[in-house]
Amino acid sequence: MSEDSSSALLTDHYELTMLQGALHSGAAARRSVFEMFARRLPEGRRYGVVAGTGRFLDLLERFRFGREELDFLSDHGVVDEPTLDWLCEYRFSGNVWGYGEGEAYFPGSPILVVEGTFAESVILETLALSVYNHDSAIASAATRMSVAAGDRPLIEMGSRRTQERSAVAAARAAYVAGFATSSNLEAGRSFDVPTGGTAAHAFTLLHDSERHAFKAQLESMGEGTTLLVDTYDVERAVRHAVELAGPELGAVRLDSGDLAATASRVRTQLDSLGATQTRIVVTGDLDEHSIQALAVAPVDGYGVGTSLVTGSGAPTVSLVYKLVARARGLEPQAPLEPVAKRSVGKPSRGGRKWALRRLDDKGIAVSEEVYPHEPAETVGTRPLLRQLVADGEVVGRETVHEARARHRATVAELPEQALRMSRGDAALPTVFH
Amino acid sequence: MSEDSSSALLTDHYELTMLQGALHSGAAARRSVFEMFARRLPEGRRYGVVAGTGRFLDLLERFRFGREELDFLSDHGVVDEPTLDWLCEYRFSGNVWGYGEGEAYFPGSPILVVEGTFAESVILETLALSVYNHDSAIASAATRMSVAAGDRPLIEMGSRRTQERSAVAAARAAYVAGFATSSNLEAGRSFDVPTGGTAAHAFTLLHDSERHAFKAQLESMGEGTTLLVDTYDVERAVRHAVELAGPELGAVRLDSGDLAATASRVRTQLDSLGATQTRIVVTGDLDEHSIQALAVAPVDGYGVGTSLVTGSGAPTVSLVYKLVARARGLEPQAPLEPVAKRSVGKPSRGGRKWALRRLDDKGIAVSEEVYPHEPAETVGTRPLLRQLVADGEVVGRETVHEARARHRATVAELPEQALRMSRGDAALPTVFH
Repeated sequence: MSEDSSSALLTDHYELTMLQGALHSGAAARRSVFEMFARRLPEGRRYGVVAGTGRFLDLLERFRFGREELDFLSDHGVVDEPTLDWLCEYRFSGNVWGYGEGEAYFPGSPILVVEGTFAESVILETLALSVYNHDSAIASAATRMSVAAGDRPLIEMGSRRTQERSAVAAARAAYVAGFATSSNLEAGRSFDVPTGGTAAHAFTLLHDSERHAFKAQLESMGEGTTLLVDTYDVERAVRHAVELAGPELGAVRLDSGDLAATASRVRTQLDSLGATQTRIVVTGDLDEHSIQALAVAPVDGYGVGTSLVTGSGAPTVSLVYKLVARARGLEPQAPLEPVAKRSVGKPSRGGRKWALRRLDDKGIAVSEEVYPHEPAETVGTRPLLRQLVADGEVVGRETVHEARARHRATVAELPEQALRMSRGDAALPTVFH
Repeated sequence: MSEDSSSALLTDHYELTMLQGALHSGAAARRSVFEMFARRLPEGRRYGVVAGTGRFLDLLERFRFGREELDFLSDHGVVDEPTLDWLCEYRFSGNVWGYGEGEAYFPGSPILVVEGTFAESVILETLALSVYNHDSAIASAATRMSVAAGDRPLIEMGSRRTQERSAVAAARAAYVAGFATSSNLEAGRSFDVPTGGTAAHAFTLLHDSERHAFKAQLESMGEGTTLLVDTYDVERAVRHAVELAGPELGAVRLDSGDLAATASRVRTQLDSLGATQTRIVVTGDLDEHSIQALAVAPVDGYGVGTSLVTGSGAPTVSLVYKLVARARGLEPQAPLEPVAKRSVGKPSRGGRKWALRRLDDKGIAVSEEVYPHEPAETVGTRPLLRQLVADGEVVGRETVHEARARHRATVAELPEQALRMSRGDAALPTVFH
């Protein structure tokens, strides 16, 4: 994808008709605050993980209406001429604060705070939600797999089970949440995610025999490669693999059957053949529960596909982007007042918010504290909002490696019950002041 | 997104290392057949819907390794020099047949058949699966919503609950499977999907009163617009809406509460105010089951978001892309022989396949017939494979409108039990000859 292509039409039609109405009424220029938050965690989850921040900032910079976008809107009568003129000049000029990428979140955490005119802020709604809802869903599943896997590396390999561009974003989010590598090459190019992979069953089937296939792979990729040993008969494949590669064989991969039992047999066989350093990688419909169940098996790495890219039962985390305050009048200094709808079952909490995480004297998180004003920093609290955009300029860009480090630190700080795989409630209470 | 950008890195690392191994062994040039199929339908579904064909053909034409892609592969040591040289020249030169977009499919239906050298065909695996797995999952959910909605129009509005590029593909797939419009503007531009939308709660909250907001919207968009009436008090909002717009008000939208009961009250109120033609559109966490339950309510249209873009419980349809045959030798005329792995629990059926749908004398589908050779066309059968690519040239391109028409025709042909919302087995048996 071209890095300079516009992201402006990755949005809902109604964002632009609302803009038109607000330009008509004059309210478009009212200073406003929008916040992104989740009313609840996905069913049974104990914490969520914020991801997508870096992608959102890139897309925000490309949220520009060029000639092609304006022609489409004009030709299809989406908005009127004054609105087209406004869009032609559009540059977000406001401020954005957000939870750091990789950070844990809880119900009501103000993950993103966007402050600007109504017009410039409302039209970012769809794009912001698309990015954060997807990427956070993947990271919120990935973190559980990372916890379940412990020190054993996780390989993201779900590209084929999700849309081709989601695959890239999923690989990135999984890396932020602790995965070691991905199969997705575009994630390597776009986001510096380490990539890996060797061969599928088709490679074995292509050759006249499994031995031919192994020989070709070893000659081409070296003895450190990973040989897939379950196309025909695992025991025979392992024997041939070590015969051909020698005891320096890097790894064997199992993709089917009873993985725990097979891994145990293969470990015994490898050891008996002298290949004591050869690793065993397992793949095939794994999720956090089967990874945890394999903890006692002699497994050295896990490849995870479908369950990762589909959020392991929660493909979206249901973040919303709500107007929480707007100025009483049009002047830049007009005071902000909280707003909130009263729709049945979907209450909103009005007013701009700030957030801290409170830690006990051992450094373990005990609560999420949300304030209607900037709180004083006190011992045992950690502020959660970072400035991401200042007067329209992106100031909070980080690498995925920094986000990954933050995720590791934030998980280390969570109480033990947050890390259980069983269904449960939010591990921290959200306290609204 | 730039239309000419390369799709070549939207692929798994191992596709290219397999290519390297096969170039090394010489087997890369073997004529091969890969097939895409589903081993089963998503749990409880009675049929699936093929979607993604048009997108796949576009992406196939852009599957080219340019300087940027080759530099990444080289700098990161993904493959060796001979493989880079081969990729530099890569153009798919083979043949592809596929089920028509919008067609129903069943377990084992050969949805896509790719014939070419091993090398040129294997590297399309990830991209083909990403596109078809996603788009078919959306279409397979959308078709059920279309059936449940009957003649009432469905509005796709799930962009915010899925990755920003998946949102575009989802809008397209939903349109193929019977949705009337989408909120997604990029789907309008890229794929000619009709788009629509008016305003959200933020628009009402922005203004000093709901009346101000309605007045601004009506003045800007005309009385035919849709007013959102559940921000504060529905009864009062409907009264104000008709006062301000007159009885020509286009529609009101309900996004919360007990939709059936509220719609009934609003219908009575609208009629009593003389707004008998004003439509009632409902939105808010709808899926095929709640749409069906609303069949008796006075509702004129449904907006569907989350459940649509997440495949209503089945975000992927688990299509696989398998080598089913390859030539005995390297010569172009070497006979193809079936291949199949024996991995536990994941058997493959070797050999190139053809498919027909058998219809009874009333034109109702009775079975999916899969042959290991091209079957004779007989009365009461309909061939399911269309040629999509001939000697590397795309020959099967269609508009989304053509795919949508095919979907409508194929659903009309399905037996009554296929269209039930309850969980069930595949509505047609797949007969392997």
